[in-house]
Amino acid sequence: MKTDIEISQDATLLPINEIAEKLGLKDDDLELHGKYKAKIEFSALNRLKENPKGKLILVTSINPTPAGEGKSTVTIGLGDALNKIGKNTVIALREPSLGPVMGIKGGATGGGYAQVLPMEDINLHFTGDMHAITTANNALSALLDNHIHQGNELNIDPRRVIWKRVVDLNDRELRFITVGLGGPINGVPREDGFDITVASEIMAILCLSTDIEDLKNRLANIVVAYTYDKEPVTVGDLKIQGALALVLKDAIKPNLVQTIYHTPAFVHGGPFANIAHGCNSILATQTALHCGDYVVTEAGFGADLGGEKFLDIKVPSLGKAPDAVVIVATIRALKMHGGVTKNDLSAENLEALKTGFANLAKHIENMQKYNLPVVVAINEFISDTEKEIELLRELCAAFGVKVERTAVWEKGAEGGIDLAQTVVETIATNEQTFRSIFKHDDDNIEEKVEAIVEEIYGGNEVNYSKKAMQQLATFKKYGWDRLPVCMAKTQYSLSDDPTKLGAPSDFSVTIREFVPKIGAGFIVALTGDVMTMPGLPKKPAALNMDIDSNGDAIGLF
Amino acid sequence: MKTDIEISQDATLLPINEIAEKLGLKDDDLELHGKYKAKIEFSALNRLKENPKGKLILVTSINPTPAGEGKSTVTIGLGDALNKIGKNTVIALREPSLGPVMGIKGGATGGGYAQVLPMEDINLHFTGDMHAITTANNALSALLDNHIHQGNELNIDPRRVIWKRVVDLNDRELRFITVGLGGPINGVPREDGFDITVASEIMAILCLSTDIEDLKNRLANIVVAYTYDKEPVTVGDLKIQGALALVLKDAIKPNLVQTIYHTPAFVHGGPFANIAHGCNSILATQTALHCGDYVVTEAGFGADLGGEKFLDIKVPSLGKAPDAVVIVATIRALKMHGGVTKNDLSAENLEALKTGFANLAKHIENMQKYNLPVVVAINEFISDTEKEIELLRELCAAFGVKVERTAVWEKGAEGGIDLAQTVVETIATNEQTFRSIFKHDDDNIEEKVEAIVEEIYGGNEVNYSKKAMQQLATFKKYGWDRLPVCMAKTQYSLSDDPTKLGAPSDFSVTIREFVPKIGAGFIVALTGDVMTMPGLPKKPAALNMDIDSNGDAIGLF
Repeated sequence: MKTDIEISQDATLLPINEIAEKLGLKDDDLELHGKYKAKIEFSALNRLKENPKGKLILVTSINPTPAGEGKSTVTIGLGDALNKIGKNTVIALREPSLGPVMGIKGGATGGGYAQVLPMEDINLHFTGDMHAITTANNALSALLDNHIHQGNELNIDPRRVIWKRVVDLNDRELRFITVGLGGPINGVPREDGFDITVASEIMAILCLSTDIEDLKNRLANIVVAYTYDKEPVTVGDLKIQGALALVLKDAIKPNLVQTIYHTPAFVHGGPFANIAHGCNSILATQTALHCGDYVVTEAGFGADLGGEKFLDIKVPSLGKAPDAVVIVATIRALKMHGGVTKNDLSAENLEALKTGFANLAKHIENMQKYNLPVVVAINEFISDTEKEIELLRELCAAFGVKVERTAVWEKGAEGGIDLAQTVVETIATNEQTFRSIFKHDDDNIEEKVEAIVEEIYGGNEVNYSKKAMQQLATFKKYGWDRLPVCMAKTQYSLSDDPTKLGAPSDFSVTIREFVPKIGAGFIVALTGDVMTMPGLPKKPAALNMDIDSNGDAIGLF
Repeated sequence: MKTDIEISQDATLLPINEIAEKLGLKDDDLELHGKYKAKIEFSALNRLKENPKGKLILVTSINPTPAGEGKSTVTIGLGDALNKIGKNTVIALREPSLGPVMGIKGGATGGGYAQVLPMEDINLHFTGDMHAITTANNALSALLDNHIHQGNELNIDPRRVIWKRVVDLNDRELRFITVGLGGPINGVPREDGFDITVASEIMAILCLSTDIEDLKNRLANIVVAYTYDKEPVTVGDLKIQGALALVLKDAIKPNLVQTIYHTPAFVHGGPFANIAHGCNSILATQTALHCGDYVVTEAGFGADLGGEKFLDIKVPSLGKAPDAVVIVATIRALKMHGGVTKNDLSAENLEALKTGFANLAKHIENMQKYNLPVVVAINEFISDTEKEIELLRELCAAFGVKVERTAVWEKGAEGGIDLAQTVVETIATNEQTFRSIFKHDDDNIEEKVEAIVEEIYGGNEVNYSKKAMQQLATFKKYGWDRLPVCMAKTQYSLSDDPTKLGAPSDFSVTIREFVPKIGAGFIVALTGDVMTMPGLPKKPAALNMDIDSNGDAIGLF
């Protein structure tokens, strides 16, 4: 079997303008980045808005396990399979962060014969969006600290600067730092820290902005610090929203690439779903909806994180709910949720499957609370037995949900045809209408947090730290108390404890701190130990990376 | 008069593949970045090496003053003028750093009708080279700190980590910081600091590498820290040169753009000349030499900094010395060197011009020490008088040097014809052979520093701090004592004191510290107060930057 990068390098790509042509885009609508990547110009985005919107399929998953689920792979394979059965389909994905690529994962562009290409470019600098976001974020920091250093007209309290710097790397060393040391000519000493770029509010803003004016307004609304009188200070107060928007002028344009089967794929924006809202950009999804009769998109990690945020944060801005939800699982991962250790996953174990199904069942129920039709996609492994598959079909049938096996990793488009047909049928026969689990405008932050914890996670109580309680009081004063909530939580469990697999119940969730992201338009609620800056493992993936003397990539996977 | 960005936005550019075609490059040789920027593929670079080499013209200047000299503008205008008089000419420039663009300067792509375009793209993210260098630099930091955190097999002393992180911003707050705070799971506490990206050794390496193998070898040779036994630790010891080279795989390819007059311009690599070696990349200059009969290039700041480093650091790697040197000055700037304040520069002042000429005279003498023929280019101002010009011609004639006025800012190519003709004649009639001011392989670090201070700066003594003395002893032990020296010095004076204008004499220069850059292949000598991380002014240029609702840039100049 070839490795992902070998499959990628052996694939024959079409020039990206041929892919674009299928979508009704001409050469002048494209800003080429090499032969196989392009950004879409604003004039074209505006023109496409005249087209009707296609059907939207959201791919999500159970809580991930070390056994691997392959959500991106299924998303891409489903898009390819839909095209194969004659449906005009476009894919809309997030773009990878270099930090995890160099750390554990190696890459984030699907796998096997279900990949977006060129994988080595997308996994490295792609079209520079991450770098533009990093630069805008850190330019804001430099301008903010310079304001304080040069007389501090806005009366900013350096102890209450909440805007952090970012790098698109896993760098634990930068989590807690002190800056501005070295005497008066070298700035004002204060505590600080770096997040990973995908956690930057500017990433969320880029993903939620619908046009350049919206981008500038959101940037102006970012709260970066508080004054000595505890009043919020914004980017608008610093008068630098224009400069930050200028730095983002290309990054905000969606990127177009293709799969191995030449399915068009918009890959744009990449917030993580555990520490941010976990969805690709509104502009990319919207453009995809205007180009394709079907659009397959994904949201990060499980349906409790990316799925919930897609429905509660992205859908209101996008103005369109999914027409169907695909929940990806594997028999192996379900057995892990049922208590089997990684080394014993190859043996048939119906009991463990039944126990672990509780995790999938909870995610199915959750999506059904939004009135969404669900299909379960089982990413096939050689160790899956017929009895296991049969049992899973029975268990899902009790929820009125069909199960389809996919083999897109091994067989590409061909391996996803059953899933594609079932998804199309499901959309065609669905009669329900999307509804939210809370009243977006009326429910306050506590009500939203509690709805998510109780209805989605299955917990029975929310605790707030003293700091979080104080924040709720001040947020009310600032008029932020009805904003949407973006939960920051471990991806490994429905609860805030990563060791609780399956479908835990009778647990409480602790909110240790809120982080206002007023430009993005939501309040982040930090639970458990979730970190906004990952670390590297003992043997990082970077140790295997190289280039040959022709400049071709080695060791990305 | 239109602003630079208005002139840029009004100019009619040719598609970059048409520019490339003039150089013998086909579509497959290019990696397009939009319609007007392209990177050149390695296969093409290798093919071009079969072509003969053109003549090389180095543009440098007097010590810069707040009056402005316009070295980049003259470089670009001279290239345009050479083409206008029928000489097949290519330009090779450095790419701008975003830090100063957002700080004081606003832009660095020439001015008026002598610009490389599209100026807003080149001044912002361009083709992502700066971001790739920033990322490689900081990935190295993250991997190094992770090594220490995860058991420290190499026995690295955290107090002796010399590798610093970088951002491509002016951010004084990051000059002196502490990292790794917050307890054992958040890394190892130590002192650290950020430099600006252009000061990164990886920038120097990118600019000096001749191919991918050379790049990887140089990366492997970077010394990042010392062990508890005071032995150097390299990137090769960490086994991550492959990963860093992978991050740089596109950044190392030269970028092709054009001037307003469609002159091809390679804009690639951008180390500052006060804190680094100040020259664009070897690969870009080499490629330009194989494409053009004449190549116009520049080196940063005055002939004492970029000029000296071009001749002593770049020329040995490039394998070719300049065929002529153009020293750019203005009457106004020379009067400032003669003691006139900025507000009084418009009045005729022959006495001040004569006094201030000492600065230009010293740079002429210096270039003549290398046996290089010199032409002086006076960038015309409306306040220049005929008598002043006449006096300058007489003063230069005493050195056997011709003076040409240029008006390329106002008139473009037409305004540089006299200069172009004189440069062509100077090259045609030159019979001297380039020689260096020291023996590169035999002279040790002290001898090289002293040669530069005494012969180029005109000082009479070099002092070393206690730290610098100790470093010289250890460098000898490590076998680094014959490496080239890269002086880090203020650009405003021939001395290490920015207030000493004209041609100071009877001064000493103090080396406060050496910084080994073994991958780049030289030792940086820090003099005076020169800083490797600039700060922002009270009213940064960023305050005027914006984009309109079509996404077009406003406020870059």
